[in-house]
Amino acid sequence: MLRSGTVNRRVVLASRPRGLPTPRDFRIDEAAVPTPGEGQVLLRTLYLSLDPYMRQVMDEIPPVYAPSVRLGEPMVGGTVNRVVASKHPGFRPGDLVLGNAGWQDYVLSEGQDLVSLGELAQPSQALGVLGMPAFTAYVGLLDMAQPKPRETVVVAAATGAVGAVVGQLARLKGARVVGIAGGADKCRYAVEELGFDVCLDRRDSRLAERLAAACPGGIDIYFENVGGAVFDAVLPLLNIGARVTVCGLIAHYNEETLPPGPNRLPQLMTAVLQKRIRMQGVVILDHYADRFDAFRRDMGEWVATGRVKLREDRVDGLENAPTAFIGLLEGHNFGKLVVRVSDD
Amino acid sequence: MLRSGTVNRRVVLASRPRGLPTPRDFRIDEAAVPTPGEGQVLLRTLYLSLDPYMRQVMDEIPPVYAPSVRLGEPMVGGTVNRVVASKHPGFRPGDLVLGNAGWQDYVLSEGQDLVSLGELAQPSQALGVLGMPAFTAYVGLLDMAQPKPRETVVVAAATGAVGAVVGQLARLKGARVVGIAGGADKCRYAVEELGFDVCLDRRDSRLAERLAAACPGGIDIYFENVGGAVFDAVLPLLNIGARVTVCGLIAHYNEETLPPGPNRLPQLMTAVLQKRIRMQGVVILDHYADRFDAFRRDMGEWVATGRVKLREDRVDGLENAPTAFIGLLEGHNFGKLVVRVSDD
Repeated sequence: MLRSGTVNRRVVLASRPRGLPTPRDFRIDEAAVPTPGEGQVLLRTLYLSLDPYMRQVMDEIPPVYAPSVRLGEPMVGGTVNRVVASKHPGFRPGDLVLGNAGWQDYVLSEGQDLVSLGELAQPSQALGVLGMPAFTAYVGLLDMAQPKPRETVVVAAATGAVGAVVGQLARLKGARVVGIAGGADKCRYAVEELGFDVCLDRRDSRLAERLAAACPGGIDIYFENVGGAVFDAVLPLLNIGARVTVCGLIAHYNEETLPPGPNRLPQLMTAVLQKRIRMQGVVILDHYADRFDAFRRDMGEWVATGRVKLREDRVDGLENAPTAFIGLLEGHNFGKLVVRVSDD
Repeated sequence: MLRSGTVNRRVVLASRPRGLPTPRDFRIDEAAVPTPGEGQVLLRTLYLSLDPYMRQVMDEIPPVYAPSVRLGEPMVGGTVNRVVASKHPGFRPGDLVLGNAGWQDYVLSEGQDLVSLGELAQPSQALGVLGMPAFTAYVGLLDMAQPKPRETVVVAAATGAVGAVVGQLARLKGARVVGIAGGADKCRYAVEELGFDVCLDRRDSRLAERLAAACPGGIDIYFENVGGAVFDAVLPLLNIGARVTVCGLIAHYNEETLPPGPNRLPQLMTAVLQKRIRMQGVVILDHYADRFDAFRRDMGEWVATGRVKLREDRVDGLENAPTAFIGLLEGHNFGKLVVRVSDD
């Protein structure tokens, strides 16, 4: 692993991907380490979070919730940073903060986007079980879908950063949890380590049939992280009064055109109507002001008492971020994917 | 108009329609007027409500919320009835009640499905502005979509029984209301009589463009009664945080197969996610226990003070119900469609 030092390595967007990104869509360049001006802090990146939404900001047409990354500019992303130098009254060299440095060694900040982390025992948890993905699970499941005891909750990408927390929170609320994950190892982990009642392999050609068998009373809550064939299997099983939280659609992020017909949109609308489904999209940026304090309090306790955990899939070295990210889009990660950019 | 008398005329389902029903899918037969046993009342039908959902219970595969009508059995439907004879302690001959007699002159009831109407000045209002369609608008708009002052509310089938009330309630709450209706007469009525801000003709080939122009700030609430091309025009205009109440999909009720591709389901899910849309289906049967009393109180006042009104499209004679119903599915009605079955 390269040690960060006197240059600022930056992973920039070299070209806009067609479909699944390739390593050639990224380029590593080197720039001078910037010097903080009055009111600024210089941050060194310790950990970089890799998340599926980053695929969407690589496109020329951005998602509604964030601008596109510009060609030649560093990829964006949440980070854990150490303050290296500070001309800001609120931060001192050595402070550990949650930031948005993106895919690079160093960044300047005016401080308003930083959250002080104190001295976290495992700083990278601020990107996972104590950070954005778990907060997404918290709001999307507890606030929006509102699981009740003995309800059946189905969650896709069940060992991913969001899905793993969704399943554990649903169990905490007394629900029955059926996960869907890619491969036998992940499924075993979901059941044995995370406490899911059942976990099914999304690659199983008989997924729809197995999901029906695993949900004899139908599905009360579906937490959508993927789309595609998984949603197709879920839709007919949704119960009257079901809630669907739409958090991610990773199966579709690389699509350049609409999938072939028939057009199943009216089928979905008919299900929403006849089954009185409540479906809601969650973009977690909306909820920090209102709900992050409650999340930190609740999740801090659940993590400390071992009731919620999240496996970390750690990759060493900023230069490996592109390959790791492409693997994430293909489901190769196992747990929350983070890049260790620099030794502390 | 035939006068009801000593026989019970019944409009029965003769065959299951393929696509749009035809008059041959119905048959009028005659049966003896039944005699009430102990605990029963005999009801004569004064008014029969015709509503789009009735198309769905004509299919062999029923909608989730109601069973199919069996071949040879009377079509189902809400009615205003006069009690003719009673062996039930709660009802006396002459009482006016809201019932579910279906498409026939007489029916027996054990009373549990009846609501006493007292002496309503316009009894057929119990099927419209004081009944099921307006109650659907009340729950679907006020409880679910929750309009706020200055928001833009779009409602399809804007002069229909539900849509007309939705628009007026949205205006009552200070929202800007854009209706979509079939033809210039209906559009003029929506603006001049119902107080909509704008109303667009759904048959306009440039509907999508005109809707965009009519909603310069986007759409905050869409009340879905139709589906099809209208929803296609609405979807790109929905704002962040938009609410969509799915109440009806009349454009799809006659479809025997899924529409051709591309498959736009992922596009809808992407919009739900990125725009944090909350979409919910309303089947009004769910809400009588909790909300009907509040509706009757509120709507009774709004109707009495002239703040909400609903045009009635009245057809005379049970024998004309099939043709009127087919016209409803084609959008030929103008206001709440009721059949006057019998003089009082």
